[in-house]
Amino acid sequence: MNRFKIKELGKREIDSPLVTRFGGSNFFINEKKRICFYPYNDEKSVDESFELAGAREKIYFNPKVTIPAIVTCGGISPGFNDVIRSVVMEAYYGYGVPYVLGIKFGYNGLIPEKYKAIRLYPENVSHIHQQGGTILGSSRGGTDNIPILVDTLQKNNVNILFTIGGDGTQKGAHAIYLEAEKRGYKLSVIGIPKTIDNDISYIQRTFGFDTAFSKAVESINSAHVEASAAPYGVGLVKLMGRDSGFIAATAALAMNDVNYLIVPEVKFDLDKFLSWLYIRMTEREHAVICVAEGAGQDELRKGKELEYDASGNPKLKDIGLFLKQKIKEHMLEKGIKVNLKYIDPSYIIRSAPANANDSVYCISLGQHAVHAAMAGKTDMLVGRWSNQYTHVPIELAISKKKHIDITSGFWYRVMEATGQPLK
Amino acid sequence: MNRFKIKELGKREIDSPLVTRFGGSNFFINEKKRICFYPYNDEKSVDESFELAGAREKIYFNPKVTIPAIVTCGGISPGFNDVIRSVVMEAYYGYGVPYVLGIKFGYNGLIPEKYKAIRLYPENVSHIHQQGGTILGSSRGGTDNIPILVDTLQKNNVNILFTIGGDGTQKGAHAIYLEAEKRGYKLSVIGIPKTIDNDISYIQRTFGFDTAFSKAVESINSAHVEASAAPYGVGLVKLMGRDSGFIAATAALAMNDVNYLIVPEVKFDLDKFLSWLYIRMTEREHAVICVAEGAGQDELRKGKELEYDASGNPKLKDIGLFLKQKIKEHMLEKGIKVNLKYIDPSYIIRSAPANANDSVYCISLGQHAVHAAMAGKTDMLVGRWSNQYTHVPIELAISKKKHIDITSGFWYRVMEATGQPLK
Amino acid sequence: MNRFKIKELGKREIDSPLVTRFGGSNFFINEKKRICFYPYNDEKSVDESFELAGAREKIYFNPKVTIPAIVTCGGISPGFNDVIRSVVMEAYYGYGVPYVLGIKFGYNGLIPEKYKAIRLYPENVSHIHQQGGTILGSSRGGTDNIPILVDTLQKNNVNILFTIGGDGTQKGAHAIYLEAEKRGYKLSVIGIPKTIDNDISYIQRTFGFDTAFSKAVESINSAHVEASAAPYGVGLVKLMGRDSGFIAATAALAMNDVNYLIVPEVKFDLDKFLSWLYIRMTEREHAVICVAEGAGQDELRKGKELEYDASGNPKLKDIGLFLKQKIKEHMLEKGIKVNLKYIDPSYIIRSAPANANDSVYCISLGQHAVHAAMAGKTDMLVGRWSNQYTHVPIELAISKKKHIDITSGFWYRVMEATGQPLK
Amino acid sequence: MNRFKIKELGKREIDSPLVTRFGGSNFFINEKKRICFYPYNDEKSVDESFELAGAREKIYFNPKVTIPAIVTCGGISPGFNDVIRSVVMEAYYGYGVPYVLGIKFGYNGLIPEKYKAIRLYPENVSHIHQQGGTILGSSRGGTDNIPILVDTLQKNNVNILFTIGGDGTQKGAHAIYLEAEKRGYKLSVIGIPKTIDNDISYIQRTFGFDTAFSKAVESINSAHVEASAAPYGVGLVKLMGRDSGFIAATAALAMNDVNYLIVPEVKFDLDKFLSWLYIRMTEREHAVICVAEGAGQDELRKGKELEYDASGNPKLKDIGLFLKQKIKEHMLEKGIKVNLKYIDPSYIIRSAPANANDSVYCISLGQHAVHAAMAGKTDMLVGRWSNQYTHVPIELAISKKKHIDITSGFWYRVMEATGQPLK
Repeated sequence: MNRFKIKELGKREIDSPLVTRFGGSNFFINEKKRICFYPYNDEKSVDESFELAGAREKIYFNPKVTIPAIVTCGGISPGFNDVIRSVVMEAYYGYGVPYVLGIKFGYNGLIPEKYKAIRLYPENVSHIHQQGGTILGSSRGGTDNIPILVDTLQKNNVNILFTIGGDGTQKGAHAIYLEAEKRGYKLSVIGIPKTIDNDISYIQRTFGFDTAFSKAVESINSAHVEASAAPYGVGLVKLMGRDSGFIAATAALAMNDVNYLIVPEVKFDLDKFLSWLYIRMTEREHAVICVAEGAGQDELRKGKELEYDASGNPKLKDIGLFLKQKIKEHMLEKGIKVNLKYIDPSYIIRSAPANANDSVYCISLGQHAVHAAMAGKTDMLVGRWSNQYTHVPIELAISKKKHIDITSGFWYRVMEATGQPLK
Repeated sequence: MNRFKIKELGKREIDSPLVTRFGGSNFFINEKKRICFYPYNDEKSVDESFELAGAREKIYFNPKVTIPAIVTCGGISPGFNDVIRSVVMEAYYGYGVPYVLGIKFGYNGLIPEKYKAIRLYPENVSHIHQQGGTILGSSRGGTDNIPILVDTLQKNNVNILFTIGGDGTQKGAHAIYLEAEKRGYKLSVIGIPKTIDNDISYIQRTFGFDTAFSKAVESINSAHVEASAAPYGVGLVKLMGRDSGFIAATAALAMNDVNYLIVPEVKFDLDKFLSWLYIRMTEREHAVICVAEGAGQDELRKGKELEYDASGNPKLKDIGLFLKQKIKEHMLEKGIKVNLKYIDPSYIIRSAPANANDSVYCISLGQHAVHAAMAGKTDMLVGRWSNQYTHVPIELAISKKKHIDITSGFWYRVMEATGQPLK
Repeated sequence: MNRFKIKELGKREIDSPLVTRFGGSNFFINEKKRICFYPYNDEKSVDESFELAGAREKIYFNPKVTIPAIVTCGGISPGFNDVIRSVVMEAYYGYGVPYVLGIKFGYNGLIPEKYKAIRLYPENVSHIHQQGGTILGSSRGGTDNIPILVDTLQKNNVNILFTIGGDGTQKGAHAIYLEAEKRGYKLSVIGIPKTIDNDISYIQRTFGFDTAFSKAVESINSAHVEASAAPYGVGLVKLMGRDSGFIAATAALAMNDVNYLIVPEVKFDLDKFLSWLYIRMTEREHAVICVAEGAGQDELRKGKELEYDASGNPKLKDIGLFLKQKIKEHMLEKGIKVNLKYIDPSYIIRSAPANANDSVYCISLGQHAVHAAMAGKTDMLVGRWSNQYTHVPIELAISKKKHIDITSGFWYRVMEATGQPLK
Repeated sequence: MNRFKIKELGKREIDSPLVTRFGGSNFFINEKKRICFYPYNDEKSVDESFELAGAREKIYFNPKVTIPAIVTCGGISPGFNDVIRSVVMEAYYGYGVPYVLGIKFGYNGLIPEKYKAIRLYPENVSHIHQQGGTILGSSRGGTDNIPILVDTLQKNNVNILFTIGGDGTQKGAHAIYLEAEKRGYKLSVIGIPKTIDNDISYIQRTFGFDTAFSKAVESINSAHVEASAAPYGVGLVKLMGRDSGFIAATAALAMNDVNYLIVPEVKFDLDKFLSWLYIRMTEREHAVICVAEGAGQDELRKGKELEYDASGNPKLKDIGLFLKQKIKEHMLEKGIKVNLKYIDPSYIIRSAPANANDSVYCISLGQHAVHAAMAGKTDMLVGRWSNQYTHVPIELAISKKKHIDITSGFWYRVMEATGQPLK
């Protein structure tokens, strides 16, 4: 089976209201033209390719009677509200859909009696992109009993479900798709991938990431200012990144004031790090260190068993506080009293409103999600590849996490920026 | 001849000092692997492809005795200083080049007796990225007498010339390359394309563009606030974009408060525009209009001859002030006294320091420019395609300007965001 | 008659609902204690003193049946929405007033049939401070027929009118007070002074001013970057300030990169200025000039009659464009081709949301306006003096404009910062 | 003895170079005119008054041979670099002093052999205000052996010492003054008070405070976004404020989204707080709590002895982490699983560059410090009172800390903004 093939609800076809507006032009997507997964000239396969996102000439749903619902899940990320706003605007103005149902607090909002959904119109979403977070509220989990969620959707005559969230959320979306399919319930399930860590595969960047590393740069700058202003100053910044260090690495590249970067993709050796730091302190008398939260877990656990939280994610030990203590102790042993300033800006970063770059991205994702849904696509995410918007099967996207390729030019550029030892 | 082929200085090959640092790893670029120009699955040609940027295992210049020079030309753009800083840092720390010669005020700085070049070291560039503009100063022109410029370079034993600038600058760089070639003077000429308008072909984005449209969004927001706060309020924003409306269009997409967007790529019909505006004012009582400076020039000239400035660019008439007057007059005739607020943020945008996204881009461009130069490449630009850094022959890049494709999904998304009539 | 005496509606006295909440504490203002107008030790008069703003133990209106109205007038200024929000919050939560009537588009909104007022509750104002401008809309004038305005207020059973605006607005407020007084209509008229120029006497600072000069600093920085980046670069910034140059002078002080400052308070001599500029250009090759819009009007008119606009304000000639032309011409005559960049950030500044400092100020002004109104005060403004919130009779405040005292330490500090010649 | 009396070095009097520039005008300060400490009309004493800051017509030092030194001490605060820059600019351009000696890392830089002082000229300080922190570096302590510090000053022929720092720093400055006095060494010791907490008495505001609470507002906004976006969301922000809660209280007032504010000035009752929070969570399902670091120490210690650090400051227990734990535990007992997000932005706030408002303040403080020093004043701080710049005897300023007056209008306004119970 083709891993890149998008599922469709079926054959009912209605002329898109956009036909009139855009005059039947070449606006509509040609389903034959696809974007290649592998962009290089050697062994170039044209079979592995993504369906292009965009409006279709024929749509599946009759806009006048279509009820889309939208749900936001997991930790907050810059751009949630931009996506919500864009979906509402596109559905309302682009297709004439009367309103979008806003589900409160993630999938939990589909459990009966818990929260009341709200109707979203252009009027009540027009300014929301200026606020961080999500006006719908978000939560983790809620997917233990998929049939109940589907019952709620069905009872409310929901035709389309937009799921904004990460890995776990999209697994839930896939399960909802399967349950709807089983029931013959014609529900279009369209995911918009959200992980501030940028760790979803087959998608070049997740929304919120540009804002996140840009805000992270401010904390690195703070750490640098603090480190430079005190004798034996050490600025230590812990950034987001459970499995992938993209935020930390990109921020380090933006601001070449980071002297040592620690990411989950590279095994962390505490002793080597401390030896390096000692030399740095004697030579330069200050240092800026940046660590992604998921890094160094082996070092932290030292043989102990891995623990898991309710959602099945491994519980992370706090590498930031660990390093803070180890650095102080080690340097004191060596006779240096460091002035260590520890900065953990995670909630400040997550809660920021999207910057302009992310706004453009979020608006585009929202528009494309509506196009895909109205065309009757389902069990898919809206993505981006080689700078084109794409449709990605959910199963493909969640099959593995995306990590920094530490043999890539990106990683070497980062290493050149920090100047840290490579081994 | 292959339009995508990069020129080289010759065969002298020295082990890169990076070999030691990165341990002879797979860090170095495999010259066979290239990135395809056309990324789609239909009629996929693997012949048209870009050389990949990055460090080479064998280099051409002996770093210890290499003298690179750097020159910044044309109007200022966010990121100039980031590129300068990155070039200096990479040359110094990456290769052990003693210093970089900073040429003052563009090519004019190579005309003898005019300005004195300055030596750039890590110390005197370490904070410059926090300032907008260019520490070297910039100017237009200076390329009337190419041999004189090459004389100056030769006299100063310059081996590498980094030219940061747009179309005209890179034409100059190409001419310098040809003159050096003629003399058998082994000069590596490496351009880093700069146009805030993002109108260079074969390069997915120019540096400064992300900062520019992000700042432009602030002005659109101002226009929206002004327009909403007064009876019959009209906010009119003129943005940069001589030939291409990317800044205006991207900013309009980021902030869907623009009601009418006017770009050079679409022929402007004043009468239709005014008719639309009249309807908008009677229905909604306020409007936000965004125009790129190069738009509507036919309408402005109405049969008059085109005039040219010293650099051979056509002199633009001021579409912003023209529209301001026409709108006021027309609406007054129709009995509506508009409250028009005209905003021209061009210098505020150009002079901003690079945002984090552009900083990452500028640093990477600078690193790759040094890698290319040290490897003995010449007559080329550092570019980016399908999110990979590339080498682009100067002649190819300047063969035509890049414009918004008004049949693309991007343009339709913009039109959906503004909601303006398409014809 | 005491110029500092506040008028009151009369003697009806109700226990403030705040009594319960704050427990009858020393929270309430002691009417005997006042703040002196003249703070120095020589000839210290204690007679000229301001009534202190703050909650009173006995109030005049019964909150349950009180209908306050609020109107925003004149050009927009940062903080309008913060004041509106604060008034609504204080009236609702502090006193239990059911809602506040929001009048649309200034006094024009009190002319029957023009616009519909809206009811303001905490819910619909809770996020408005994040937007610039005013959610009510604003306009100039509308005060030609005061009795009609008072009719509208009376018909709607309005007890309190909050007027946010400048000189003209507060003259209107005073006229409304007189008309209500004549009718025996117990209307409390409370003004909150707004002029972005900070030119209201007897009030140490108007809201929006801190945001305004802070934003102005960004434009001066842009001008400096532009001026430094080009040969013979001149950055010319025109800032707000019709009669008083506070914004320009304070911004110049914040950023000592302004080389010549031109304000309305100092007679402008074009020839001397141009002579200075010529010397500056030959010595330093760049200059930053900052001019307040009301400066140099004599020079501009050169004997011509003063013209007035509909509101009776003299029409200003554009000093910015005038200087731009004169500088270019003069320098060309002298053989210097300047690169002049002209920046007019006025609408960008006016439309900004309030910064944190102004937010604190606006919230406090709104709270005190409600306290004053509920206590039955009328014909007054909420002000600030020696860092205490005060009540200022409208007639006193509008009796003269506030100007920069060019014999003050403030002005000399500004002159030290620019280093320009004093004569 | 008059507590407000400023000490002077003696009678040697030289015409200020400013006389020429400002033309002998009324620019110079009239020593008789002073500003009253108590600004109210009741029991107004004109005896307690501050000397006004500003340039004097006769100065004590001969600028050509004057060597000023400047030292920055304690924790960093926004504006350090602005003050340094202003002192250098004023000394150099205003008086013709050749350079200012920059002492590294606080008083420790005066201990021989530790660090090398650097010479500061306009060129090397012209851009430093764009960076946070201090280019000189800072440190605590170093005042154990005052004679050694004075030896160093004397050996280097230093005439003026500018001390930028808080309580402890100014105590050190006073000791240095006494030691110099004892030796008959004519040293002018001028302090510029720095405490980000704004807790210095007799001075209306310390520099950096405006930037600090403005940045704090961003964290409160983050906390609000996080709290609103999750079921039972609690945003908890810990802000600076060892003895005085000005930053927390002012930030809470700017942004009325804080629901409970905890400051050192009000005894903290954990049980009452938790009861309130339980009610809040059941009624509104989210809450934002803001705590100053010095609050609730009694509650934390519960009978244990106070511990002191090397500088003699009591060691604070971490109220933020304490509350985080107590809230989670208590709510869990009550059956509510809160989503608590804890934000500690201290280092991000401290390391920010000064905003425009603080820049104006810092520049003015620096100018006035130079004026005072050149005039031969000593053992004093530059301050501000009733919006005038003043001279404050060090002993007076450090005689007691400034706290929020919890019977003041300011505090009540804060309480109205949070809406929290008063008892």
